[in-house]
This record gives sequence, C-alpha cells and structure tokens, in this order.
Amino acid sequence: MLYNFQIQTNKRTQMIDITDKVFEQVAKLGVKSGLCTIFVPHTTAGVTINENADPDVVRDMMYEMDKIVPEDDGYLHFEGNSSAHIKATMTGFSQTIIIENSKLLLGRWQGIYFCEYDGPRNRTVYVKIIKDMTYN
Amino acid sequence: MLYNFQIQTNKRTQMIDITDKVFEQVAKLGVKSGLCTIFVPHTTAGVTINENADPDVVRDMMYEMDKIVPEDDGYLHFEGNSSAHIKATMTGFSQTIIIENSKLLLGRWQGIYFCEYDGPRNRTVYVKIIKDMTYN
Amino acid sequence: MLYNFQIQTNKRTQMIDITDKVFEQVAKLGVKSGLCTIFVPHTTAGVTINENADPDVVRDMMYEMDKIVPEDDGYLHFEGNSSAHIKATMTGFSQTIIIENSKLLLGRWQGIYFCEYDGPRNRTVYVKIIKDMTYN
Repeated sequence: MLYNFQIQTNKRTQMIDITDKVFEQVAKLGVKSGLCTIFVPHTTAGVTINENADPDVVRDMMYEMDKIVPEDDGYLHFEGNSSAHIKATMTGFSQTIIIENSKLLLGRWQGIYFCEYDGPRNRTVYVKIIKDMTYN
Repeated sequence: MLYNFQIQTNKRTQMIDITDKVFEQVAKLGVKSGLCTIFVPHTTAGVTINENADPDVVRDMMYEMDKIVPEDDGYLHFEGNSSAHIKATMTGFSQTIIIENSKLLLGRWQGIYFCEYDGPRNRTVYVKIIKDMTYN
Repeated sequence: MLYNFQIQTNKRTQMIDITDKVFEQVAKLGVKSGLCTIFVPHTTAGVTINENADPDVVRDMMYEMDKIVPEDDGYLHFEGNSSAHIKATMTGFSQTIIIENSKLLLGRWQGIYFCEYDGPRNRTVYVKIIKDMTYN
C-alpha cells in the first residue's frame, strides 16, 4: 500500500498543506488501524505537521527558518543551496501518523505540510500505510 | 493497540520525562518485537529523546532553543506563539522506537521527553504499537 | 528482524554515509514491502538523510550546525557537550524509510547519514524492518 503524488511549488521557500491528499489515500484503503508514513524523496525539501488555521503560522515559520539558517553564510557547496539542505534536515524527511478508526489521528489544529526550501520545483511525496494486523 | 495519557505542564517551556509511562504500555502488552510510535497531537509541543541523567541537559536545551528561536522576532501570527510552533517542528511530533525482547530498545542514557513550548497547558500523548508479525 | 552495526567516528562533529550498510540488511532479508527504521541509541548523535553527491553538503551542514548551536553558550551541563545534545534533538534519533520491490525507496540524491556531534566515539546503529503483511 504505497501511493505517491506530485506537487508543483512556486516559491523558493514555501509550506503547502497536503493533509487532504493524505487523508484521501487513507480513506480509500479502509485500513482501520495502523501507521501512515509520509516520505519526501528529496534533499532540499521536508515534511512537517503544524497549525492549519492561521496562515501566518507557516509564513512565520519560513521567515524564521531563513534567519536561523541564512541563505548565504560561508557555504562551500557549488550549487549554492546549502541552506535548503540544512533546513530539510532540521524539518525531517518523513512524518509517521497513527491511523485509528480508519482515520489519521491528527490533533484538532494539526495539518500536514510539505516544506519547499529550494523551489520552485516539481516534487514527489510518498505515502506508505502499514496495517496493525491485530485489528484489521 | 493505541494508548493515550494526559500531561499537565506548568511552565512556558519545559521537558517532561515520559519514559516510564511509555515503558508501562509496552510491558502491559507483552509484544515481543515491533515498533512503538509516540505521537503528540499538538502544534506547539513536541517529543524527543535525550539524556535523563543530568537535569542540566534539558535545562540547557530549553535555554538554547529560546536563543535559536526568540520568543519575539517580527512574527505576524496573532496568538504571539510562533516561536512555539517553530520549535515544535524542529523537535518533531513523533518518535519511533524499536521494541525487542518485550522492551523499548533505548540507549543507556536515553529518556523520552515531552517538550512543552507554549505552556502551561493540559496535553495529550498517543502511543501506538505495531507488532513485528514475523516474531509474535 | 533487528540488526545493528558499529561505527568508529574520528572527529568531534562528522557525518558518515551508512546507506550501503542499511541497503545490505534490506537486500539480505528479501522483504518485498514494508518499513525500515534506523535508530541511534545515543544522546549526542543522530541520523538524517541528505545529499550524497557533493561532499561539501555535509561539510556545510556540520559548519552551520556549529553556528546555530555554539559549542559554548552559557550551558550548565557539567560534561560540556550540551551543544551535541541539542544538535542531536534537532537532527533526530531515527529515520523511517519505505521498502518497496525489496529496496529502500530513497530519492535519487538521498543518502543516509550518521551524525556524530560529540566524537570521536564508538557508536551503534540499529536497523529494524517491519514487513507490510498485505504484500509479503
């Protein structure tokens, strides 16, 4: 049970809400209980969970990440995108979310966000679902 | 096999050792081998693993996180807790730990810590266990 | 299905490519589909995924992590390695990677890196594989 979808980003750094796309896969499958792993196969993008109510939260996150890891800071990597590599490691390349009662067990304010740090690019996201065999 | 427990935090930023609570669930179940995912369903709190011997380690961590992600730094989010959202992403919302011989396979100095970044609040932690079906 | 291997680091901070060692375990097993969790049982080292083409990427990452989390910065922990503990939390102690068609589903440029933040030391890495029972 492996799925993937594409995302077209349109800025250098950007958070894109992918919650609905992941929910869709889980709903389609009808797995009652298990784990859902969302994996980003890139080195300058990551995936996180955060608030999906006020859009200023994701704006503030991208703004602050730029201050914590400046775009230019004495890096040697010839492509000039070292800050993107570092931010991706700090964000993480996967999120593991519990499936219970055939739904992703996210908190009330949680959304799943693809984090672009070196866009614009066409990106891929993998979604893998593992059944809890004691329940399914 | 899904469990949850509540935590009452009492400071703005705080790390609380939840190792014993997670061990308890794993012991109760008698799962010989598998994975244990600890998930925090919030957007201003996270979960990590770190040293549980010297309490100064968690003090230093909260202290330094406040320097890396200042509480006030030109954020737009109206609730004023953007730093907590950013720290939570940097910490992570889940930890996945191996279960072997019916125990969590933690290193000698490792403890599991709930990380409060916008307390005091009443918080929830989920613990999901997936059996390795080739061993159980 | 649990494996471990040792790593000897030889610098204070260092990223070591462990992709081949993890691939080896997955190949040996012949698991067609599932999850592979790589877990570091330490508190001053972590594991991440990043670019394995240009060695300057890992140099830049260690260099910038030293700027984000200075080695000396008013810490109280008597061992003097608080920066290593904080970097380890920011990096993460595990990575979960999808197994599909008996291979780790890594992106084209992705390698798996052990991150030493308080070396030189002799370190351990655990690799746990969970089969997707609907495919195997």
